[in-house]
Amino acid sequence: MSYRIERDFLGEKQVPQDAYYGIQTLRAVENFPITGVPIHFELIVALAHVKKAAAQANAATHMLPAPIMQAIVQAADEVAGGQWADQFIVDSIQGGAGTSINMNMNEVLANRALEIMGREKGDYFYCNPNNHVNMSQSTNDAIPTALKIAAHRLADRLLETLGTLQAGFAAKQQAFDDVIKMGRTHLQDAVPIRLGQEFGAYAAVVGRDIKRISSATAHLLPVNMGATAVGTGLNAKPEYIREVVRLLAEDLRIPIESAADLVDATQNTDAYTELSASLKVCAVNLSKICNDIRLMASGPRTGLSELSLPARQPGSSIMPGKVNPVMAEVVNQTAFQVMGNDHTICLASEAGQFELNVMGPVIAFNLLQSLKILRNAIDVFVRYALEGMEANRDRCRTYVSNSFGIVTALNPHLGYEVAAGLVKEALKTGMTVQDLILERSLLTKEEMDVILDPVQMTTPGIAGEWLIGHNGDTD
Amino acid sequence: MSYRIERDFLGEKQVPQDAYYGIQTLRAVENFPITGVPIHFELIVALAHVKKAAAQANAATHMLPAPIMQAIVQAADEVAGGQWADQFIVDSIQGGAGTSINMNMNEVLANRALEIMGREKGDYFYCNPNNHVNMSQSTNDAIPTALKIAAHRLADRLLETLGTLQAGFAAKQQAFDDVIKMGRTHLQDAVPIRLGQEFGAYAAVVGRDIKRISSATAHLLPVNMGATAVGTGLNAKPEYIREVVRLLAEDLRIPIESAADLVDATQNTDAYTELSASLKVCAVNLSKICNDIRLMASGPRTGLSELSLPARQPGSSIMPGKVNPVMAEVVNQTAFQVMGNDHTICLASEAGQFELNVMGPVIAFNLLQSLKILRNAIDVFVRYALEGMEANRDRCRTYVSNSFGIVTALNPHLGYEVAAGLVKEALKTGMTVQDLILERSLLTKEEMDVILDPVQMTTPGIAGEWLIGHNGDTD
Amino acid sequence: MSYRIERDFLGEKQVPQDAYYGIQTLRAVENFPITGVPIHFELIVALAHVKKAAAQANAATHMLPAPIMQAIVQAADEVAGGQWADQFIVDSIQGGAGTSINMNMNEVLANRALEIMGREKGDYFYCNPNNHVNMSQSTNDAIPTALKIAAHRLADRLLETLGTLQAGFAAKQQAFDDVIKMGRTHLQDAVPIRLGQEFGAYAAVVGRDIKRISSATAHLLPVNMGATAVGTGLNAKPEYIREVVRLLAEDLRIPIESAADLVDATQNTDAYTELSASLKVCAVNLSKICNDIRLMASGPRTGLSELSLPARQPGSSIMPGKVNPVMAEVVNQTAFQVMGNDHTICLASEAGQFELNVMGPVIAFNLLQSLKILRNAIDVFVRYALEGMEANRDRCRTYVSNSFGIVTALNPHLGYEVAAGLVKEALKTGMTVQDLILERSLLTKEEMDVILDPVQMTTPGIAGEWLIGHNGDTD
Amino acid sequence: MSYRIERDFLGEKQVPQDAYYGIQTLRAVENFPITGVPIHFELIVALAHVKKAAAQANAATHMLPAPIMQAIVQAADEVAGGQWADQFIVDSIQGGAGTSINMNMNEVLANRALEIMGREKGDYFYCNPNNHVNMSQSTNDAIPTALKIAAHRLADRLLETLGTLQAGFAAKQQAFDDVIKMGRTHLQDAVPIRLGQEFGAYAAVVGRDIKRISSATAHLLPVNMGATAVGTGLNAKPEYIREVVRLLAEDLRIPIESAADLVDATQNTDAYTELSASLKVCAVNLSKICNDIRLMASGPRTGLSELSLPARQPGSSIMPGKVNPVMAEVVNQTAFQVMGNDHTICLASEAGQFELNVMGPVIAFNLLQSLKILRNAIDVFVRYALEGMEANRDRCRTYVSNSFGIVTALNPHLGYEVAAGLVKEALKTGMTVQDLILERSLLTKEEMDVILDPVQMTTPGIAGEWLIGHNGDTD
Repeated sequence: MSYRIERDFLGEKQVPQDAYYGIQTLRAVENFPITGVPIHFELIVALAHVKKAAAQANAATHMLPAPIMQAIVQAADEVAGGQWADQFIVDSIQGGAGTSINMNMNEVLANRALEIMGREKGDYFYCNPNNHVNMSQSTNDAIPTALKIAAHRLADRLLETLGTLQAGFAAKQQAFDDVIKMGRTHLQDAVPIRLGQEFGAYAAVVGRDIKRISSATAHLLPVNMGATAVGTGLNAKPEYIREVVRLLAEDLRIPIESAADLVDATQNTDAYTELSASLKVCAVNLSKICNDIRLMASGPRTGLSELSLPARQPGSSIMPGKVNPVMAEVVNQTAFQVMGNDHTICLASEAGQFELNVMGPVIAFNLLQSLKILRNAIDVFVRYALEGMEANRDRCRTYVSNSFGIVTALNPHLGYEVAAGLVKEALKTGMTVQDLILERSLLTKEEMDVILDPVQMTTPGIAGEWLIGHNGDTD
Repeated sequence: MSYRIERDFLGEKQVPQDAYYGIQTLRAVENFPITGVPIHFELIVALAHVKKAAAQANAATHMLPAPIMQAIVQAADEVAGGQWADQFIVDSIQGGAGTSINMNMNEVLANRALEIMGREKGDYFYCNPNNHVNMSQSTNDAIPTALKIAAHRLADRLLETLGTLQAGFAAKQQAFDDVIKMGRTHLQDAVPIRLGQEFGAYAAVVGRDIKRISSATAHLLPVNMGATAVGTGLNAKPEYIREVVRLLAEDLRIPIESAADLVDATQNTDAYTELSASLKVCAVNLSKICNDIRLMASGPRTGLSELSLPARQPGSSIMPGKVNPVMAEVVNQTAFQVMGNDHTICLASEAGQFELNVMGPVIAFNLLQSLKILRNAIDVFVRYALEGMEANRDRCRTYVSNSFGIVTALNPHLGYEVAAGLVKEALKTGMTVQDLILERSLLTKEEMDVILDPVQMTTPGIAGEWLIGHNGDTD
Repeated sequence: MSYRIERDFLGEKQVPQDAYYGIQTLRAVENFPITGVPIHFELIVALAHVKKAAAQANAATHMLPAPIMQAIVQAADEVAGGQWADQFIVDSIQGGAGTSINMNMNEVLANRALEIMGREKGDYFYCNPNNHVNMSQSTNDAIPTALKIAAHRLADRLLETLGTLQAGFAAKQQAFDDVIKMGRTHLQDAVPIRLGQEFGAYAAVVGRDIKRISSATAHLLPVNMGATAVGTGLNAKPEYIREVVRLLAEDLRIPIESAADLVDATQNTDAYTELSASLKVCAVNLSKICNDIRLMASGPRTGLSELSLPARQPGSSIMPGKVNPVMAEVVNQTAFQVMGNDHTICLASEAGQFELNVMGPVIAFNLLQSLKILRNAIDVFVRYALEGMEANRDRCRTYVSNSFGIVTALNPHLGYEVAAGLVKEALKTGMTVQDLILERSLLTKEEMDVILDPVQMTTPGIAGEWLIGHNGDTD
Repeated sequence: MSYRIERDFLGEKQVPQDAYYGIQTLRAVENFPITGVPIHFELIVALAHVKKAAAQANAATHMLPAPIMQAIVQAADEVAGGQWADQFIVDSIQGGAGTSINMNMNEVLANRALEIMGREKGDYFYCNPNNHVNMSQSTNDAIPTALKIAAHRLADRLLETLGTLQAGFAAKQQAFDDVIKMGRTHLQDAVPIRLGQEFGAYAAVVGRDIKRISSATAHLLPVNMGATAVGTGLNAKPEYIREVVRLLAEDLRIPIESAADLVDATQNTDAYTELSASLKVCAVNLSKICNDIRLMASGPRTGLSELSLPARQPGSSIMPGKVNPVMAEVVNQTAFQVMGNDHTICLASEAGQFELNVMGPVIAFNLLQSLKILRNAIDVFVRYALEGMEANRDRCRTYVSNSFGIVTALNPHLGYEVAAGLVKEALKTGMTVQDLILERSLLTKEEMDVILDPVQMTTPGIAGEWLIGHNGDTD
């Protein structure tokens, strides 16, 4: 391989002749061989947009000559379009608050711009990674801005998928509206409920998750472009700051805005912890829902068997014919990952000191992963589990018929103690509660049928209220 | 001691004659000797309000005779006013989703109501814990409603204290606006900043915490009163549901409302995880701020010594004259507790199954503790650390004078490489950057003084921009 | 109330005349009204032992006059015996790394010693909290030593209770050894297993938890008494260090020893994180076990109903006759608390800086709570749930008869695909697998009965192996 | 592309003609497009070893014909040697407890074995993924066994690197043994310590981490090979079970052994949570150490500047000459990741149900990542930060001279209050403590010099003890 020599203030290094990255990228690769996982590509794309807007704003404010600007813009467009992806070689977890990924980008754009301008790679006099590509910027504003943009775009996709999930649950709410089943509390028989009501509750909580994540996503919009090193805006003209944010918003069609306090926006990472927390809350909810679904789909013969899920793959390498609720399981696991990621993000956020949180890379790594995997898991769950899910209506109905929970409806008529006594007796004798009521003449058959109608029990009200009569008399 | 005999469907038990609690409370005390920490009193108070409103709504809808209602209401008012606190003896962590604390309340109110009506304690024919006090209710609606009310009230106090904290930081932002100091990133000298800007950033992030917690607090308002056992409202009249929520809102002057979907509101606990998450985000921010303050106040001789905190107590049992930043430390510790509590709350929330999350008690224990201790810690921090905090202006200024970070302002004039070379040379020779600039005739004295003015560096812009001149020419 | 005036280097304060605590305690009470939860009493007791041993060792090494020593020892014995508990009034979460609880103890012992010596409280010339009670000590060695002792004693009790739990599971392993039931993976029917095997697995994992916690507990034994302020032993004679540790070990009958490196033992908190981690691992295991038990006990009519738990309390304030698995639920909740506490402990441990971790109080608060509540929850679980637990043998057997999972035993005879086809056909037609096998003449009745014997399936081996015959031929 | 058709009991699918994987792998790829991160290659390698040993043991126990065995063994050896890596295409996070990765391996080995035997890919009559490659196995024993092996091998490498770290700290303990510096507690000046003692403490805690991780690693050794589906060993001959474990141990030179209770070993995941917990404790310790190092290396002009780290890369894209402690920062971030991963692992472990924990994939993903990144981060930290670290001796010494902490040594001579008064006066007047002592004739110059010698203060003992004299008289 042939090499060119590059220099920085710490010395010099051989860089492969055809590489677009340069000396600082190589230093970072040497320093940080940690995860082997490259930077999330959405962050690369967002950073390219940042560099493009910065170059344009610098030119507009007479800091950067137009030809250099044009070359940088073309290079950035290429990167944002997916070219040169193999040139971004620094690790996801890196020291230095993102300096390495920022310099990786600065070097790639500078060298590509040089090429566009007909110069040699490494001939930084004509386009310098620091002086031209990074002009008016610092890692400390460019990287957080790019991270917010990347997170915003991934959040948009997640929100869309959550919308599909909510709609899917709502569709089942409709489809299962007439499926009467036993409600359970403490995993013990409680009182009747309709299966549609269960799915309505799932749709409702997902609806709130959408609101929470949307709200947190909106808080990503104030960016700190122009903050430069510590938020004071040193070396960034006010007109540049206005322009770069305007251009970015226009380019990305995301209403980003300049943070009211750039010092605040540079040192604080609460926009990430807030978004991650909203993902975590969503993950907790989804995990609960998937636990329910796995319970209802348990069986086929030794479980609850109230739901049937589409068979997606053989469930065992040894047990023939076994099918598992794998799509729900993968949502559970994804939820656990998101919850663990949130923990990492909080630890990293708490570790900020003074003007900067230098743990940004690990925050980015986890936040972007959470956004991505949550979307992916929900997407396949909807398509491969939710849409084809079916209710085992007979099974559900049989449970209602066999259970004692319906005696709750007797409370207003017979009182809690009498009703409890009926359950105890039924369990002992094997008789039904209905037979015991009639045997003891506690109610007439007609009264009983009204009071113990399970469908009535699934909406507010006291069945056979007019039969009580005397309660109101005394007041 | 003399006893009365009480019965439930599992058998009978001796209850101390003068106890207001009854058999189910005693069972719970026997079953759950876990933490030794009683139920948070704010939850007791809220539950008393719930019972009062339920009794009134039951009477208004002709289910509960007025005399019984009036006795229950009086008893509930007494409990809410702080009487009978010693009768609430069940443990904070308890099995049963709160049935035990609900029954503890039902029994205390029933027995106190009996007393008020001139009856014997335990004579439940006249006022029964289940049939009268708990009428139209279940643990599964009464307890979540009470928890939301208690959390709301504690959150209000926390928000007020956070407002004071924000104002305190804003006051320091003003007071320290003219204190020039070195900004630090990576704990390494960066570029100048004003101490007021640091405190402005603290005020800003606390401001966002207030918004986040307020928003989460508002999501506590939809309550599930009338949901009864599983959210279907079995045994609760629609008019009762409307009335009980209206009465509660009126009584408490909190705009609580009936949840749109009672099944959802009964099984989902996202209102708690959301609130806890907002507290956690706040805790992360406060911990970072306190870390900064402890760093700036480090010393007096071997630390940064940029800030002086009021001396609150001798800092060592062995080192004479030592004073520690104890008020900041206690905020750090409280923040860690809140973060751990959030973890517990998420675990408990994820463990919900079907119509109910039976882990409610441990959620309540942690959520109410977080709200309380965060408020308490911030309150004393403001009064005992923030208000009397002083800047060591000379020290701050000296740091600026001695540091090299100011060379960043040379970038637009001399380029990044030349500036880096100056730092390297200054470190090697011990010369100042200024002397090197003049020695090498890189700038005139006048130009240099303009460009390297540290105060100018704390706002956006390029010092001596007109000196650049030729950059804009080429485009 | 009458007062005495006490002074420290920050000023003076009125102390209630009859209080044994003094000025520094009062400062701490004012500074830290955080949780309202007093210091765990086991820590008070341990600290009293530390103070006693220190006084004796100081006297033995000619630093402390015998009469003062004797008075301090008597006072410490009284505190360790439970007297003066109301004098320990500082909060569990406090700034200052435990200085406040250390000074609270120093002041109480000094004043009680003064009283014993016939002096006035506050007359510190004759017995001074710092110079005499705290002689040769610092908060930074006395408090960690006391915490390790307290944790060790609580861990011993926990280990004893875990032993009972393990024995309880082992007893059920025996009792349920002949209860054949369906094993489940993914909550789907798998292959037969004996209920005793399930409980054997529970006993086994608890056995490992005991080893893990024992091992971590042993790592509490090296203490840093004599480290004084930063571990260098300044102001502590080497002979005092030897003597104080020897006396403590003797007094407590715990083989504590002097840490090999006192600087290390003063700044590092890994003994706590290790112990807490072992508790967390145990909590995870217990929560899984209780989830299993709650699932097996689900019902009575709409759940699995494989197990019956003793009825401990009415399970609902509204649903008559309902009984819930409350003892398992309280273990789940306790497990969640322990897991959250571990999180707090790790956060606090990570926050150590240089010679000391100042977050000790919140570590102590959580660690001692975890030890206590885990023991308490297990204790009641064993007595109120495990011991009276019964298997529903018929139900278990019926599940085995109805399930298809047994076809797995056909693999070596018919191959995975043929067996899978049988399941598919059985599900479609409603026929049993057995009938299908015979109908298709895949096996004779005799062969089938041997191969499909569920009891045989619960131990390693290939049922009817001799029937395969030809497999081995080919090699 | 040309395809072959493969079938399973759910239907058929086109498989690329030259693919070694088959229908079930394709189903999994379709079902689980979650992270985009492939299975950790160490797990692939370990699973290949498992399949090889199983084939050999099946042949040895006359279940598998020798030619098929030989082909499988050759195929497995190739995979373990790194061939066919591109054929393992299922995602790291997948539903189904690892069935998909197990089947991916079964299919690749079957097809490669077919090729070796001169058959067509997909011609499963001659070598079937389930019947031959997976013979006597289940996902539920093969995958946990492979995971334990993979974790063991990665843990070995981590332990070796931790050994290097410990040695590195010990070397600095030696090198810095004579560097006197101020100890700090609460970030406030405490008493003198030697820099070597700090590094000795780091070496000590890392030594304990090595023991903890070693101990946990040893607990990976009992494997559940032969457990098959639920631990009962259905379809696995006892002699096969013995043989497969023996062969695996021999092949891998790791003393793995057959778990005493296979049911236990199949359903419980405490070996993973224990190992992860030990990594987490280590991460907490390393993060604390790196925080210390970053603090000591803070500066160069506005920080503590007690240590100098090797310059590894330019520290800023905007601030010329800035160098950051990037190697320490990357350890912090890695530590946070490990702590978050531990959280995920615990959540997944707690979610186990009955005979199996179906969340295995997410456990494996996080555990193997933690092992890998912790090793990698420590490795580069040692080489790029620890080895070249230097003490700024003059700076350290100057801090000692300027600080008041040394007055602690006066306690035994003058008492805590007098010493505290000296500090207060010194702070007020700007005088040194030494001058005040002489001015007030509290000690002679000779006495003072003996008592206030900072080097003496770094080992146990009372400086100038003979000067006290009268303390011992009274006893």
